[in-house]
Amino acid sequence: MSRPDVLERARELDQADPLRAARSAFVIDDERLVYVDGNSLGRLPRAAIDLAADLVRRQWGASLIRGWNDHWLDLPERLGAKIAGLVGAHADEVIVADSTTVNLFKLSVAALGARPGRTGIVSDDLNFPSDLHSLAESAVLLGRGHHLDLVRSADGQTVSTAAIAAALSEDTALLCLSHVAFKSGFLHEMAAVTAAAHDNGALTLWDLSHSVGAVPVDLEASGADLAVGCTYKYLSGGPGSPAFLYVRRSLQEQLTNPLAGWMGRASMFDFDLDHVPAEGIRRFLTGTPPVLSMACMEPGLDLVAAAGLDAIRAKSIGLVAFFLELFEEYLAPLGYRLQSPVEPERRGSHVSLGHDDGLAIDLALIAELGVIPDFRPPDNLRLGFAPLSTSFAEVAELTMRLAQVVVDGVYRKYMSEGETPNRVKAT
Amino acid sequence: MSRPDVLERARELDQADPLRAARSAFVIDDERLVYVDGNSLGRLPRAAIDLAADLVRRQWGASLIRGWNDHWLDLPERLGAKIAGLVGAHADEVIVADSTTVNLFKLSVAALGARPGRTGIVSDDLNFPSDLHSLAESAVLLGRGHHLDLVRSADGQTVSTAAIAAALSEDTALLCLSHVAFKSGFLHEMAAVTAAAHDNGALTLWDLSHSVGAVPVDLEASGADLAVGCTYKYLSGGPGSPAFLYVRRSLQEQLTNPLAGWMGRASMFDFDLDHVPAEGIRRFLTGTPPVLSMACMEPGLDLVAAAGLDAIRAKSIGLVAFFLELFEEYLAPLGYRLQSPVEPERRGSHVSLGHDDGLAIDLALIAELGVIPDFRPPDNLRLGFAPLSTSFAEVAELTMRLAQVVVDGVYRKYMSEGETPNRVKAT
Repeated sequence: MSRPDVLERARELDQADPLRAARSAFVIDDERLVYVDGNSLGRLPRAAIDLAADLVRRQWGASLIRGWNDHWLDLPERLGAKIAGLVGAHADEVIVADSTTVNLFKLSVAALGARPGRTGIVSDDLNFPSDLHSLAESAVLLGRGHHLDLVRSADGQTVSTAAIAAALSEDTALLCLSHVAFKSGFLHEMAAVTAAAHDNGALTLWDLSHSVGAVPVDLEASGADLAVGCTYKYLSGGPGSPAFLYVRRSLQEQLTNPLAGWMGRASMFDFDLDHVPAEGIRRFLTGTPPVLSMACMEPGLDLVAAAGLDAIRAKSIGLVAFFLELFEEYLAPLGYRLQSPVEPERRGSHVSLGHDDGLAIDLALIAELGVIPDFRPPDNLRLGFAPLSTSFAEVAELTMRLAQVVVDGVYRKYMSEGETPNRVKAT
Repeated sequence: MSRPDVLERARELDQADPLRAARSAFVIDDERLVYVDGNSLGRLPRAAIDLAADLVRRQWGASLIRGWNDHWLDLPERLGAKIAGLVGAHADEVIVADSTTVNLFKLSVAALGARPGRTGIVSDDLNFPSDLHSLAESAVLLGRGHHLDLVRSADGQTVSTAAIAAALSEDTALLCLSHVAFKSGFLHEMAAVTAAAHDNGALTLWDLSHSVGAVPVDLEASGADLAVGCTYKYLSGGPGSPAFLYVRRSLQEQLTNPLAGWMGRASMFDFDLDHVPAEGIRRFLTGTPPVLSMACMEPGLDLVAAAGLDAIRAKSIGLVAFFLELFEEYLAPLGYRLQSPVEPERRGSHVSLGHDDGLAIDLALIAELGVIPDFRPPDNLRLGFAPLSTSFAEVAELTMRLAQVVVDGVYRKYMSEGETPNRVKAT
């Protein structure tokens, strides 16, 4: 396709897109900017502007302490119920709290406590490093012979269900994986992997950070035991918006939250010296939540719920298919390598490209070409397609600029900037 | 004093108050409202309104992921340095993160790890129950014979330094206390208590939630090892604004944060599978912080810093002295009992009153008399005097309405409302 043909084809795809109106629900100041980092920080929903103003001026300023009763106390459960609807869980199985890592700590330690005598924690090397560090530190902390075993990816992009299953044993207490891998975008088969864990008597803990809001998740149907995830990527919850956690109903009363705090008590306001955890999902709360950051995630959740995960997934697959079609023609000949699975059923909503000059290309794209991707060492350009806000026109522009930065040699002047990108990302 | 005399005296005190201008830096919608709960949720600084709007519309909406580099990544350290200036610490000894309870968990577990072989954790029964639950759960989690011993208050309001010292031994790993007790307002002698702990080789962990911003704290001079505290009380950080933690410089490299996360890594963006903690205070970070809630605390910190803790403390003492003077004349005869130390040097900036009908009085004050105090079971009305925003006129009105609610019998119709207040508080 010629460049005009590509742009025309993108226009047609946008016109046929059932979700095309969703883009206008987000603030887009610069239509020329190609933002393929909505998987690090989702765009700002317009509705969040007025909500934030109301939160500060009226809810804090006028309601003062009464704001807790009038507005805030039920936020963790109310927003959790909304997220539950996006991940195939019951409303009383999800709650919003803390950060993803803190929630991972809570649930992994609770899971180990529920499998006494077993010492194995299994994960894979595609998992987000922070998750692995947290699991490893928890094993040390417990000091009862717990150890983390990693299944290694043979190709650096994928890990088969069979490989996971082979790593499980009667000593495995917990299997913890990222549903979608942060770098390659590889999508685990949640149901099959969970079944393998259960066959060995182990519990499963899924990190949904890179799938929630972009990939349909059905925690109940897949039999998953536990999950955590962040809300600032495809859910557009805002910078550092609090995370969520899921505990299957039948497990809730069996698990002990190691981070006991006043929000997780049966009776928050008796101030008794004895600790009685709340019944149900609320026992996994700890301290007072950051209200402004928590409340502002609601417009993003509502946009995802209104669009529906099936339509979102279809759009995501369409966006990536269009990109991969253009990739073969425009980018592969320029030294770009696809570092993600090709098949949509094995991939989330982002794609990684390798290039020998990946870092310099990344820096040039941001500084001179109006493209914001992500970079993951050593050579990995990560391109996130946020189905609600990314247009096919953006994908076309992305491809053209990825080609241009190499063809014009713009990236060369960024080759001396050192080995790590001089910028920072929420992952 | 007659009622007109009381109001006239309050006017004189307000006119002579060097901090009287500070009140206008806060949003006060209803001048008739007596808000004596700034020790639960501080009033909204006017400057936070525009800041919140900018954070959402420009920093999130326009900067997108670039906001991390441009605005947010150094927030934990930058705001921590501002808090350090309020608690007698070096700028690199305080960082903002998570909730008070999560930080208490991190530092208490780290402290126990730094005192291997010792099993004792000492606290007192004036400490905030959540702190005690967290310490108790941590002892169970570690499972190495750790146990929490509580020094019991003889009068329900105070615990002597001698009593604390008597509870310490060569088996004590950690002494953890609230600097100012959440209920009675009792103020521990930080330096003397810390010295007693050090004499026994134990580390000290202070919860500053009810002192920071109201009482001068000098962590360095007192020799304190560790501290945590919340920012939404006297610091006016906003509902659920993140907490802070302090680790004495010389201890930072000796302690291991049990909640390993990507924000606490030496190199956040290498995504290595091995965990190398950051040097210095940053190693006590865990996950991505809630940016909106975190950033909005800055105007409150600045107001406290501008006023200065000495002036704030002087105002606090003046407010309480005026209240206690009126208490004797107006309230003691109506069945109110003072449940806080009288001497200012033994008390923070709040005062507790007992009354046989305390709960009904609390409910009537809120519903009908335009007074917002706090209630703590079983009979305790907690009155917080936030020195920057509370006026002497408010103290006069408070006293008159506390008298009126009993004299007029307004509280009686609230006596059947059950045994706990039908409202909720951030503590």
